[in-house]
Formats: sequence, C-alpha cells, structure tokens
Amino acid sequence: MNIYEAATEDFEKIWPVFHEIVKTGDTYAYAINTTKEQAKNIWLDSSRKTYVVEEDGKILGTYYLKTNHAGPGDHVCNCGYMVSPSARGRGLATMMCTHSQNVARELGYRAMQFNFVVSTNDVAIRLWDKLGFKTVGQLPKAFEHPTKGPVDSFVMYKWL
Amino acid sequence: MNIYEAATEDFEKIWPVFHEIVKTGDTYAYAINTTKEQAKNIWLDSSRKTYVVEEDGKILGTYYLKTNHAGPGDHVCNCGYMVSPSARGRGLATMMCTHSQNVARELGYRAMQFNFVVSTNDVAIRLWDKLGFKTVGQLPKAFEHPTKGPVDSFVMYKWL
Repeated sequence: MNIYEAATEDFEKIWPVFHEIVKTGDTYAYAINTTKEQAKNIWLDSSRKTYVVEEDGKILGTYYLKTNHAGPGDHVCNCGYMVSPSARGRGLATMMCTHSQNVARELGYRAMQFNFVVSTNDVAIRLWDKLGFKTVGQLPKAFEHPTKGPVDSFVMYKWL
Repeated sequence: MNIYEAATEDFEKIWPVFHEIVKTGDTYAYAINTTKEQAKNIWLDSSRKTYVVEEDGKILGTYYLKTNHAGPGDHVCNCGYMVSPSARGRGLATMMCTHSQNVARELGYRAMQFNFVVSTNDVAIRLWDKLGFKTVGQLPKAFEHPTKGPVDSFVMYKWL
C-alpha cells in the first residue's frame, strides 16, 4: 500500500471511489448526482493537497486538505477522507487521518477542523474521537439522511 | 434607506465597506490584504444573493446569502453582513439579518448557519442571540486576533 500526492491524471481512479460514496447520500454533504467534473473541482482543484492510497494500481482511499478559513483563520485546516467500500476494515481512515495531520503540521497549520460529520456516521465519529478530535459543535438537523430523515451534524476539531 | 439586490456594478460601492472592515482583521476570516477582485469573487460572485442597503447613493451595508453545504445539507444557508463604520448604531445589522431570513425562507432554506463568529465580536454575538440564533459550536483559538492573540470562534445557528 502506497500513499502519495495525487496528480491530475489520478482523478480517473479517484472518481469511482468518490462516486460510490457520494451517491449513497448518507455521509457527505455533496449532491448525490455530483458529476465527475464537479467532483474533480471539489476534491482536487479546490484543495491545497490531495493524497491517494494505492495498491496494485487501484486507489483504495483518498483525502484532501485545505485551509478552512482565510486570513486570521488560516492556521486551521480542513480535511475530507474517503475509503473505497471494498477496502473498509483495513485501517485506511486511521492511516490517512494520521498522515494528513503530519502534512498539516509540515505546512504550518496549528489545528484541523471537520465541518460536517454526520451524526449517524458512528464509525467515523468513533475513529476521529480515538485520534484526538473533540466534538466542538452540533448542527441541529443539518443533514437530510436518505432513510433516517433530518439528523444532526457535528463539528470536530483538534489542536495539532 | 433602501435595500435591494446588488448588481455587478454595485461592487464599486460595496468595495470601500468591505475593505474598511476586512483590513482591520478583527472580525472576518478574510485576508486583511484581500484585493478588490478577490473581494468581488467572495462577496458577489460566490454568493447566491447579495443585497445592499443604500442611502443618498451611498452603500451603508451589505450582506450575502449562500448555500452552506451541498446535497443533503443544502437546506441550510449561510450569510455574512457588513455595516459601514460610519453607519453603525442605526439598526442596519438587525434590518439586514431579518431581511436575509425572509429571503432565505422564500428560497426554501430551513435553517441559517454562521460558521465563524469571532468570540470577541460582542456586538454581533448579542445581536444574533437577540434574533434567535443559538451558539451551537465553539472553535478553540480558531481566530488570530490582531491585538488579543488567538481567540475562539463560534458557530451560530437558527432554524427558520
């Protein structure tokens, strides 16, 4: 398993992972019908860094890192992570989150913020919690879950 | 005093207000040296709606409204407000916030979220509180205040 910074051409292999996760509409606040072009803009072009986890030529996971707010807020970064459903249970999210914190520190960020962790995403919440993130905010009914209806979303934060 | 939706040409008169507020670096998470072109992109081009409050041909206040998150989060909007320092104390922020909630309801939004209210901005916090917004999050040391050092920032939220 290798982790490396994504180049533009890697998006061809990122897209199936992005699409498979986003189309279910139960974890990410992206339109379920996000097009490939829009996805490239979101995940690759608008980020400061995008990394991929690759094995045997296939992309198993990916994350982006960007500055969360500008100016006097620009010491806090934001990340988003995706693991291919076929690669779950292998510790990829932990690996990517740890990696992203190191990258963030190297880039001079002092904190990391997750703006929108859907409250029904137990696996992610438990993991971020274990990795030292605190729930610092709760947004009432901010996410329209496809089967559970309107559910809360959390803001999670870690000082690096 | 009139409030109306801003057209591209109005940015010439929005810019002095934006610049005067942002350059002090004590309330907004925008770079203090944001250029006019960048400001137009932030305030006008990236918003769903931008309104201005005008009196005698001068712009006294302005706000933007946009969708805060996409897809399953797209029923929550975000707004930002600016009042010219010369027009403070005249109720413009209250007027614009009330106006923006009506616009939001008309557009079908069901909640409004302020992502980044600097904790030292007492006037704003008291006002949003009075207008029914709840503090639902607190981001530790997320804002580098020019004189007070790192201070917390709040997430405020109102179900419309």
